[in-house]
Amino acid sequence: MSTQPAHPALLIPGPIEFDDAVLQSMGHFSESHVGPGFISVFGDTLSQLRKLFQTTDPASQPFVISGSGTLGWDLVSANLVEAGDDVLVLQSGYFSDGFADCLTTYGAIVTQVKAAPGSRPQLDEVEKALSAKNYKLLTVTHVDTSTGVLSELKKLSELVHKVSPDTLIVVDGVCSVACEEIAFDDWKLDGVVTASQKAIGCPAGLSISMFSGRAIERSQTRKTPPSSYFASMKNWTPIMKNYEAKKASYFATPSPQLVRALHTALTQILDKPLAERFARHREASDRIKKAVAELGLQQVAANPDDQAHGMTAMYLPESVKPTDILPILGKKGVVFAGGIHKEIASRYIRFGHMGVSVLDPSRNDIDKALTALKEALAECGHSKA
Amino acid sequence: MSTQPAHPALLIPGPIEFDDAVLQSMGHFSESHVGPGFISVFGDTLSQLRKLFQTTDPASQPFVISGSGTLGWDLVSANLVEAGDDVLVLQSGYFSDGFADCLTTYGAIVTQVKAAPGSRPQLDEVEKALSAKNYKLLTVTHVDTSTGVLSELKKLSELVHKVSPDTLIVVDGVCSVACEEIAFDDWKLDGVVTASQKAIGCPAGLSISMFSGRAIERSQTRKTPPSSYFASMKNWTPIMKNYEAKKASYFATPSPQLVRALHTALTQILDKPLAERFARHREASDRIKKAVAELGLQQVAANPDDQAHGMTAMYLPESVKPTDILPILGKKGVVFAGGIHKEIASRYIRFGHMGVSVLDPSRNDIDKALTALKEALAECGHSKA
Repeated sequence: MSTQPAHPALLIPGPIEFDDAVLQSMGHFSESHVGPGFISVFGDTLSQLRKLFQTTDPASQPFVISGSGTLGWDLVSANLVEAGDDVLVLQSGYFSDGFADCLTTYGAIVTQVKAAPGSRPQLDEVEKALSAKNYKLLTVTHVDTSTGVLSELKKLSELVHKVSPDTLIVVDGVCSVACEEIAFDDWKLDGVVTASQKAIGCPAGLSISMFSGRAIERSQTRKTPPSSYFASMKNWTPIMKNYEAKKASYFATPSPQLVRALHTALTQILDKPLAERFARHREASDRIKKAVAELGLQQVAANPDDQAHGMTAMYLPESVKPTDILPILGKKGVVFAGGIHKEIASRYIRFGHMGVSVLDPSRNDIDKALTALKEALAECGHSKA
Repeated sequence: MSTQPAHPALLIPGPIEFDDAVLQSMGHFSESHVGPGFISVFGDTLSQLRKLFQTTDPASQPFVISGSGTLGWDLVSANLVEAGDDVLVLQSGYFSDGFADCLTTYGAIVTQVKAAPGSRPQLDEVEKALSAKNYKLLTVTHVDTSTGVLSELKKLSELVHKVSPDTLIVVDGVCSVACEEIAFDDWKLDGVVTASQKAIGCPAGLSISMFSGRAIERSQTRKTPPSSYFASMKNWTPIMKNYEAKKASYFATPSPQLVRALHTALTQILDKPLAERFARHREASDRIKKAVAELGLQQVAANPDDQAHGMTAMYLPESVKPTDILPILGKKGVVFAGGIHKEIASRYIRFGHMGVSVLDPSRNDIDKALTALKEALAECGHSKA
């Protein structure tokens, strides 16, 4: 049983529920950011990330920086592209729009392959776009938190490497890392940016990323200096290398408490085979999606092949508004999220199912949520429930 | 008595020792970043910062963003200056050099008023510099963490307002906020950027800042868009205003745990008059500086009027190296920091005395540190000790 005080089950697509041991690490006594105890933990944490991302290439470089997931976009935009560079953004919702805005802020010329809400660009459309122009970088949102649409990274990367081999492939993995498989080396990815508070299961406050040797080289051979100071790979790369080599190093003060919590979370993740973790997220997702269908609700992600396994975005019956049902769910001890995709926001809600809520058998979060959803729909007058 | 496990007293100039209640807040159960509980706490936290900075002007704008103190430099550089703008940086150590580098990254033309290690630019030098060119912005490090040199903000601001009234005055307050007085309104400051892990007494991971209405207006009337995405005031200002008005708002996910810990720390700070807090830091500092002098050690900050009250940087006897004495202090349960000012790094050590180590009578950190310092010097063969 959890030692946390009774509280509603947080089942939004991040932040998620956290394990007791992770929260206990958050309250670690103060220690120096350049002292041997913290250096060792931070170094191990960076090495653990290599395992989570399934990369053994020594040229790959993990980064853990105080910030939110959004900071990862700046890291990509300020280091891997220069003003005037063409970037292809695969649009699958609110968050790919955000990535495009960030790239534009740093001077990139962004072309988007657009998709209707609930779908994603198809490979033939991407191929056509890549053939039309010489793109320095392509970005794809692995799971768009606004819609629950899942992108197919392996085939996409094969296509990019075939059609436009010099284009770097960068993945926004904020809502996918640690619940969807990512084989960084095998799939020849150049960057994955994510955050701590979703499937990794550590409180918010850390930007976490992995870049390929090819991406690091791109950042080092650019004609102009990095266009950010705090998000400069040039400033951070030696720091990360030093910590991983267990040597003191300083650019900006990391958060010992957050890094200790991340270390605890990653230790728990790596304690079991990753394949098992992904399979259990798929099983829970299948069960949830089946239950949602039985309640007569349609998913925002229309195509079963495009549905994320760590969250479910579902349209409500026409007579039910998010502002009606979310407070009812809240009273039943379950916190879901409203919609944020601007074209459809008032018509759907989001259910996050990542981490301990799915994996910890002593919790009853998923069953509780499905029961609450059924009851809440009935209270809102939806007959099927 | 603290409920924390036994550990060495962390007496570096940040991170500092944290209060039990603050560390307990770090382990708060997970909650939505847009849920009513967290919105209320974050809103209150922003209002508390107005009190800490002594500003009642409604046009002043606090920001709390996941990141380190360094992110505050990006906030200033990407929003308050544009490429080609002239900026005057008052140089007093390692950290003013960093601020200058950050400003340059974003295209500012930086002129520095330089000072020898352990001193700071004098008012007549600043006046001369301000008269020579039209500076959009002046930056000053209130306490340079590398040297313990304290700048005199009130007189400096009077000078700038007299000689160059359109120049914005921005203070790096990372090592001063909550242990040195800052009267934001009375002293007519335009910006103070700081971090959570020093005298504020909350674990690292938050960039905390206050900007004047004049600074916010400057950011809004610039000719070019902000040159950062994550550090864009345009992106963050409406978010901060909404949270303070207790309304849900989203740009990038804040850290509920860190913000709760900050709220706890600020509640403790504001529970007593600020003047009393500053006086107690001055008293502790005077006592430490007297003891250091009695041990025959010179301070890096040579002029008594230029000495910070939350830290003491002291030269070691010629025969004693930081790498000799720091491990001895560590064995005695006291963690001091080495030097980082590049011209003198191998010759001095730093003792941080902020927050609970100074204010909590149930701790014995300062006496323990002074005893350990005396013994360690004796063990290193320094006769005076």
